[in-house]
Formats: sequence, C-alpha cells, structure tokens
Amino acid sequence: MAAQKLSDDQIKQRVATLAGWTLQDGKLHFERKFKDFVDAFGFMSRVAILAEKMNHHPEWFNIWATVKIDLTTHECGGLSRLDFELAEQINDLLN
Amino acid sequence: MAAQKLSDDQIKQRVATLAGWTLQDGKLHFERKFKDFVDAFGFMSRVAILAEKMNHHPEWFNIWATVKIDLTTHECGGLSRLDFELAEQINDLLN
Repeated sequence: MAAQKLSDDQIKQRVATLAGWTLQDGKLHFERKFKDFVDAFGFMSRVAILAEKMNHHPEWFNIWATVKIDLTTHECGGLSRLDFELAEQINDLLN
Repeated sequence: MAAQKLSDDQIKQRVATLAGWTLQDGKLHFERKFKDFVDAFGFMSRVAILAEKMNHHPEWFNIWATVKIDLTTHECGGLSRLDFELAEQINDLLN
C-alpha cells in the first residue's frame, strides 16, 4: 500500500509530540551534535539499518560530530506516517 | 604539524589528476550514484573508517543511492594535502 500524505493538521499534531524534530521546508528536520565523529557515525550506522529495514530512507548530512536529518516521502510528495515512524525509531535510539 | 593551505596553482595541478573530483566553492567535491542505499551506505562506512584513521573528516550528504562529499581543511581555511590524500584513498575504494 502506498504511503498517504498526511494533512497539515495531522502533521502539526504529530510534530507536537515528537521531541527533537521540527518542520522545515515541509520536511521533518532533526539536528544533533554528538561527542565526536565516531559517535555521530555510529548513530548514523544504527539509523541506516533501521531505515533499510523500513525501506524508508533519510536525506542526511554529516560534518564531524554534527548530523542533520530530513525526512519526507517522495512517493506522496509530502509527509506520511513513514516519516513519523522513522523519526520515532530514531528517537528511541537516543533514549 | 598543522596542515598548510595549498596555493591555487598547486590545487589546479592536483585536481587535474584526481578522477571524479571537481573544485566547488573552494572545496574538493565528489558525487556518485551507487546501486542502492545499502551500496551507498556501505561505501560511506568504509570512508568513515579511513577518515577517522586519518583524523580528517568529510562534509557529506546522502539521499538513497546518492552520496555527495565535500573536502576542505578548516584549520587552514582552504585545501591542504590532507584533502587530496583522503580523496585519493576514497578513489582507491572505488577501483
């Protein structure tokens, strides 16, 4: 089943309960500074495995200890439940 | 010993012999589309280990099978031999 685009109201409600994520240019945005590069890339490796398992992948940028992630669902041209599910799984890694 | 900034002439000469890399905004730039996400992130994992070993790290972006890398040496405010050494090691991974 294709992922369905969430409405603006649905998105606002879900973002409000998602610690550490904001809406930026219509995407779910996350940014964190880790201890160092090994810590940052270790986190990315864990996210990569989860993302591949979900078959839903991030757009992401890393410089040294900083990781920036943007989530969107290209297939539906907006945010879908997949973006929130991946964001929640990423948060679970950090708790 | 601190990494020294290379001159424009030195940079031009070295870029000319470095397959797959261009100068972009004063940085060494690389972009490649891999087979899929696993292939792209596998490449990134290999680069991450080399970079940490050299203690010289990329600025990089990944979306699905595409990886974009920018190399610069913040310490000297430009390109140093470290950028070219890392670029060459990255090329060696791909050959």
